Amino acid sequence: MRGKQNSPLITLLTDFGLKDHFVGVMKGVIASIAPAARVIDITHEVEPYAIAQARFLLAQSWPYFPKGTIHVAVVDPGVGSARRPILVQAHGHLFVGPDNGLFGDLLLAPGTKARLISNRKLMLPTASATFHGRDVFAPVAAYLALGVATSHAGPLIKDAAGTSGRALRPSAYRWVGEVVHVDRFGNLITNLPASCTAGSGRFVLKIAAHELRAMAPSYAAMAPRKPAIVAGSSGFLEIAVNQDSAARLLGLGVGTRVELNLE
Amino acid sequence: MRGKQNSPLITLLTDFGLKDHFVGVMKGVIASIAPAARVIDITHEVEPYAIAQARFLLAQSWPYFPKGTIHVAVVDPGVGSARRPILVQAHGHLFVGPDNGLFGDLLLAPGTKARLISNRKLMLPTASATFHGRDVFAPVAAYLALGVATSHAGPLIKDAAGTSGRALRPSAYRWVGEVVHVDRFGNLITNLPASCTAGSGRFVLKIAAHELRAMAPSYAAMAPRKPAIVAGSSGFLEIAVNQDSAARLLGLGVGTRVELNLE
Amino acid sequence: MRGKQNSPLITLLTDFGLKDHFVGVMKGVIASIAPAARVIDITHEVEPYAIAQARFLLAQSWPYFPKGTIHVAVVDPGVGSARRPILVQAHGHLFVGPDNGLFGDLLLAPGTKARLISNRKLMLPTASATFHGRDVFAPVAAYLALGVATSHAGPLIKDAAGTSGRALRPSAYRWVGEVVHVDRFGNLITNLPASCTAGSGRFVLKIAAHELRAMAPSYAAMAPRKPAIVAGSSGFLEIAVNQDSAARLLGLGVGTRVELNLE
Repeated sequence: MRGKQNSPLITLLTDFGLKDHFVGVMKGVIASIAPAARVIDITHEVEPYAIAQARFLLAQSWPYFPKGTIHVAVVDPGVGSARRPILVQAHGHLFVGPDNGLFGDLLLAPGTKARLISNRKLMLPTASATFHGRDVFAPVAAYLALGVATSHAGPLIKDAAGTSGRALRPSAYRWVGEVVHVDRFGNLITNLPASCTAGSGRFVLKIAAHELRAMAPSYAAMAPRKPAIVAGSSGFLEIAVNQDSAARLLGLGVGTRVELNLE
Repeated sequence: MRGKQNSPLITLLTDFGLKDHFVGVMKGVIASIAPAARVIDITHEVEPYAIAQARFLLAQSWPYFPKGTIHVAVVDPGVGSARRPILVQAHGHLFVGPDNGLFGDLLLAPGTKARLISNRKLMLPTASATFHGRDVFAPVAAYLALGVATSHAGPLIKDAAGTSGRALRPSAYRWVGEVVHVDRFGNLITNLPASCTAGSGRFVLKIAAHELRAMAPSYAAMAPRKPAIVAGSSGFLEIAVNQDSAARLLGLGVGTRVELNLE
Repeated sequence: MRGKQNSPLITLLTDFGLKDHFVGVMKGVIASIAPAARVIDITHEVEPYAIAQARFLLAQSWPYFPKGTIHVAVVDPGVGSARRPILVQAHGHLFVGPDNGLFGDLLLAPGTKARLISNRKLMLPTASATFHGRDVFAPVAAYLALGVATSHAGPLIKDAAGTSGRALRPSAYRWVGEVVHVDRFGNLITNLPASCTAGSGRFVLKIAAHELRAMAPSYAAMAPRKPAIVAGSSGFLEIAVNQDSAARLLGLGVGTRVELNLE
């Protein structure tokens, strides 16, 4: 039993924070163009300019939205420079934002299309050099929500920015990756897929000077105050501490190298 | 004059914070199942695992929503353990979350019913051990918003977790309680009901080494930088400082003991 | 191409923060009275009691919303005192909040009307002395969204609080102003209009011990780690540092004096 979809959804994911008017204004622009569109915030607390973190959060989010959802992601160190605005069609969803690798993962999916956003009729007439979230991405998303065809945005392109940042697998028994996100609870989320220990009797995960061998079935099953590995809800291995912050206890954060050796 | 209620309301109250994708994903799950449901955030900044604080904030919020509103509260130190998901029906509202005392106050109301949530058809098929907000509570709330009968959630139970944490009244002239919340402005909110000084000529409120005797009719009526007692909009006594933070000035926080003696 | 406007919009701008139930409760009150009204947050992270900052953020926001939008702004050091609640009609928008200068800029526009809010039928029956956001401003906005005529709010007044805080222009070649906001990225936003350097070959902007002469076309075009002036998307001059925080690097914040001399 599913309810009838009655208005288009737009999600917002940015590094704008919530102390400014930026996000509210994007919603005002959307409401002015497409009053029936509904807007859901993923987060606006991406670290400033942290493209890899935004890519992780986007990958964790979009699959839980209905097909046809329009996802606006704006983490944009190059705003005002020559970097292009793009529209990506993948998995039955639409993605709008800067062409800086944010959507790199999505480009790997079969059937994905990328378009340059070049039609100025879909932008605010007064488009500024510094606030493309308001002047370009919000109005484009709103027009798409109104039913404007994706082909009106601009021409197909073949050279949209790809992504690095996936875990490497130098051998059948070894994975090398890094911490890509620290969540609210201080859990260190890596880019090592949760499946990478499957079928293996024993393993050791090295992070900084620590060697972890314990895999906990859940946070609650962990011994208190001892770091352990969890196959988190993200689908990736996380280093966590029961009812405490692994990031603070270990003094580690985004970018820390992790290495997994199966035995 | 009241407008016609045209779509079910769901509120969210969690300790998930806003820097992760957690809240956005819960909204995506709800929108996928019940597109017409509208979602309102109470707060996601409950201190991690602070059940008593969440209970206070929930009690302050639900009466201001229309009957039929579905309130999802997730502060859940025991996620992944044996603690049960429950659905509580009280005061014409529905409450969904973990059975850990969050809804203890509500169970005291006459006519309240509690149900175990056991029907896996109302959960995501891929329910994980670590993210019940997304996999259990959000979809259950969405199905309820669609009109699924509460009896479909699971059987009635009689042993849902109650609550402690109310102020004690050892005699007619004495109350003992604690600070249950520090608000954005640094006001220390206690669990002493605002009515407890009624009809009394004089009283003294002891908190740490401080003795307060002044009751201010409003924040603006206070002398600057001196702590005073206010019957806050919460219905409980608050210790406040005009245009400053009582929590910072006194160095006190959640859990501090308070004692009131009527004279 | 614009979509049909199908339900009234209400925006919220406060210094309530997001860790309390305050904002959620205001939305519950609105949803109880005007279920079809849609609510958009501008921000709730105005510095406590910072009226000038709120006025800046409101001025940046309201023009991006459709005519008829009801803007609720609550930054209210005088709550519980004799300050009046007011309703301002300007530019085809409605503004609801305390009469403390928040809406001073709007009063300068031709045709603006201000009304005292005195009709208690448009407030919650239990209106408290300390939470007018919930008890006065939210319900008034909701009734306006339902279509209640503005004249029902209360009588027209001529003495609503004006504003100071505009930049001065002591001569044709000199401007004096101040920093009115620090945004999420640490950009120092002044009240000097971006147009004030127009037509001038050279100029110098003095802020604390710094003298800036470089105007950057965009953030991306700046040399790394050197402060420069940008005509920001706000329409005012900003002091910014490419990919870093000008506020932190220069150790400056809201209220800092700025002076511009054209050469």
